[in-house]
Amino acid sequence: MNKSFILHILGWILNVEAAFMLLPLIVALIYKEHSGIYFLAAIGVCLVFGIPLSLRKPKNTVFFAKEGFISVALGWIMLSIIGALPFFLSREIPDYADALFEVISGISTTGASILTDVEALSHCMIFWRSFTHWIGGMGVLVFILAILPMAGGETIHIMRAESPGPSVGKLVPKMRTTATLLYSIYLGMTVLQIILLLIGRMPLFDALTITFGTAGTGGFSIKNSGMADYTRYQQSVVTIFMLLFGVNFNVYFLMLLRRFREAIRSEELKVYLIIAFSSMVLIALNVGGFKGFFSTFHHSAFQVASIMTTTGYATLDFNTWPTFSKAVLIMLMFIGASAGSTGGGIKVSRIVILFKTITKELSFLIHKRSVKVLKLEGKRIEHETLRSVNVYLISYILIFTVSVIIISLDNYDFASSFTAVSATLNNIGPGIGVVGPMGNYSGFSYLSKFVMMFDMLAGRLEIFPMLLLISPSTWKK
Amino acid sequence: MNKSFILHILGWILNVEAAFMLLPLIVALIYKEHSGIYFLAAIGVCLVFGIPLSLRKPKNTVFFAKEGFISVALGWIMLSIIGALPFFLSREIPDYADALFEVISGISTTGASILTDVEALSHCMIFWRSFTHWIGGMGVLVFILAILPMAGGETIHIMRAESPGPSVGKLVPKMRTTATLLYSIYLGMTVLQIILLLIGRMPLFDALTITFGTAGTGGFSIKNSGMADYTRYQQSVVTIFMLLFGVNFNVYFLMLLRRFREAIRSEELKVYLIIAFSSMVLIALNVGGFKGFFSTFHHSAFQVASIMTTTGYATLDFNTWPTFSKAVLIMLMFIGASAGSTGGGIKVSRIVILFKTITKELSFLIHKRSVKVLKLEGKRIEHETLRSVNVYLISYILIFTVSVIIISLDNYDFASSFTAVSATLNNIGPGIGVVGPMGNYSGFSYLSKFVMMFDMLAGRLEIFPMLLLISPSTWKK
Repeated sequence: MNKSFILHILGWILNVEAAFMLLPLIVALIYKEHSGIYFLAAIGVCLVFGIPLSLRKPKNTVFFAKEGFISVALGWIMLSIIGALPFFLSREIPDYADALFEVISGISTTGASILTDVEALSHCMIFWRSFTHWIGGMGVLVFILAILPMAGGETIHIMRAESPGPSVGKLVPKMRTTATLLYSIYLGMTVLQIILLLIGRMPLFDALTITFGTAGTGGFSIKNSGMADYTRYQQSVVTIFMLLFGVNFNVYFLMLLRRFREAIRSEELKVYLIIAFSSMVLIALNVGGFKGFFSTFHHSAFQVASIMTTTGYATLDFNTWPTFSKAVLIMLMFIGASAGSTGGGIKVSRIVILFKTITKELSFLIHKRSVKVLKLEGKRIEHETLRSVNVYLISYILIFTVSVIIISLDNYDFASSFTAVSATLNNIGPGIGVVGPMGNYSGFSYLSKFVMMFDMLAGRLEIFPMLLLISPSTWKK
Repeated sequence: MNKSFILHILGWILNVEAAFMLLPLIVALIYKEHSGIYFLAAIGVCLVFGIPLSLRKPKNTVFFAKEGFISVALGWIMLSIIGALPFFLSREIPDYADALFEVISGISTTGASILTDVEALSHCMIFWRSFTHWIGGMGVLVFILAILPMAGGETIHIMRAESPGPSVGKLVPKMRTTATLLYSIYLGMTVLQIILLLIGRMPLFDALTITFGTAGTGGFSIKNSGMADYTRYQQSVVTIFMLLFGVNFNVYFLMLLRRFREAIRSEELKVYLIIAFSSMVLIALNVGGFKGFFSTFHHSAFQVASIMTTTGYATLDFNTWPTFSKAVLIMLMFIGASAGSTGGGIKVSRIVILFKTITKELSFLIHKRSVKVLKLEGKRIEHETLRSVNVYLISYILIFTVSVIIISLDNYDFASSFTAVSATLNNIGPGIGVVGPMGNYSGFSYLSKFVMMFDMLAGRLEIFPMLLLISPSTWKK
């Protein structure tokens, strides 16, 4: 393993985290909050380690998938360990494990909270908490790729390890340009949502934090009532942007190039929208019936967009909905958003690939010896992609099962234990029962919380980085 | 499609069903029950269609996997449709859909019941209900293979379509000998269990019916209290035999040949026993603690053996157990018994194969270019087996998800809807909540019941026969 290069990257991650922490520091200055001092302390910690590590030139730049996975996994854990310091040092979250849970939930864009009273936090802490969503949404290493000049070969492995989806394509031949483009689209859409919310008379602080949570598909709310008390216009803006951030960013890239026809023809986009809209309609019919359809549709659309994109905002407590609607939402939790978006879950394109393997097998059984080529977006699905999608699914089920069993030791009811894992592994936030949209994760034991921290990171980084990190054979010799 | 050959097979299935129905007829004669007349009627129906169909020689014997799947799927459905007649005609189950549910639950070895008062049935009906478990356990087509002389080529496809497990091997070169051997082992073990129960002073009728449910891993109980009122000795005999019937019959075959070392070395057997015993210990600790370990272990062992082998008998209501124990049981529902046993679920060998693909992928990522050959029972796992295991898993998840969503329309709680599908698709019987060991399936809508009938057959026949049956392209042209 190329340790010196991994350390070099970790150094840069720390430097970037220091830079990111300047924002909550500014918020603290504006609101004249004393707790801003703890961001200074955390920035100090970042730089003490970050500057020497980043300045030391790595001995060689030989860098493979393994190194990519390990540096991403270690990088995100380190980010979280230091990112939790301000909460802990300021005693606004007095338990360090809880603070760590909150930050991991933030950067993994989960939005599961251990706080029972969010509004008790100071502004700079709420800002940092929501801002971690924005950082985690597009990924910190992609950010580093965008700003740092790095040799070509290795960067694709970093990008692959940090970006969601079964196969990460380069938008343009140069990795750095791809990263810059992705972050530009991300930033542009973020600014657009903030403006639209401000037009709807949302206070600036709310507009910023809620947009961070939307863009990263995170879902930390800044009010104890979640999104319930905002206006219909504001809620609708959030609904639309949640859906937009759940789209594969390749689609926006094609639009930027004015290749609209190609963009619209995207197979994943089509399936994503069909699933989203049919779920909205089914739930509105199930909850409101034919008479109440239109009044219910607003909330159905919000909740479906929120759960499917794995954001996790809620305008009401869907725990009170009938079981069918809850079952649809739970299904959406697993499907998740598109590959190449900021959302989590298994991802629509993986679901499409898995479906196609069934139809292929059936046609193989019916018309013996027929050889059907599996295609996605008009391109042949490589054997390697198929294999990795299958292994992903199996590992996913394994982690899911083990997690549910450990968490059930806390003896909450089955639906709560089951959806607590769904909501963390899929980076959603709220589940059903005690972890419902009006509940929180404070009641779980330390053991369960650590399992869920692992799940949140495993979900965001798509399992393999975390699996490699804990696999003994990675560290042998 | 070779329709004439399929019809020929269906004819034989009907003849065999007529023969099987002679047994409840005898029971009716012994107990002097009038409802025996309805078995005569059903036998008549079988023979009217069965004799002409079976006598007509098929035009050709070209027979592939597709024909195997379709004749198995149609055969089992036909068996159930006629098998339900005695219940319906006698008005002992006045609703035909309920009677069909009960018989499908029987031959699929599920043991899910719509009856609220089992003891109200006449003896011949209870006998037939339990006997369907015994028929379904080893399979009716395997039975036909054992008694009928058929050309060699096609029979392997029938065997493959009806027998559980990722790859069905021939025990001996001749299919007919394999089928005869399997049924001999099956019959021998059945007789042994009956004798052991009789020694424990169980009444003959109980010993027969309970053994049918154990041998087929079905689990219909003949008392409203399930297995709770039997003695500890009787319960322990059932525990041991449930475990024995959940073992791959290849192991017994090797023992018959005195190849004991090979039999004991079976990888699947080892994993099966490790999972079973560690679950028993964990649940006993969770329910009874260190102090109550030994008194709880008896029930823990019974329930674990029952659920893992997908039998479904219960000595107590495990609904009252803590969530951890319930989560372990739910996990066991999915793992299921060994391939080549009479049990259901995903099967231990598939789980082993799936696990191995994860470790292979990880070692591929860590030591790049390493090519590790996947082995099971010392033999290389063929690429085709791997692919079919993957497609099986995907189809399984698909059917599971769609079923939960449809069933949740009945608006039972999530745990009940979720485990009702687990318990039917995995051929177990009882789940959690309203479908718990002391509950039943009578409250579900017709739609849900039909979905569960499909799931029970799909589970027993390992999905592909049922999937092919409903796939439009099977029937095109």
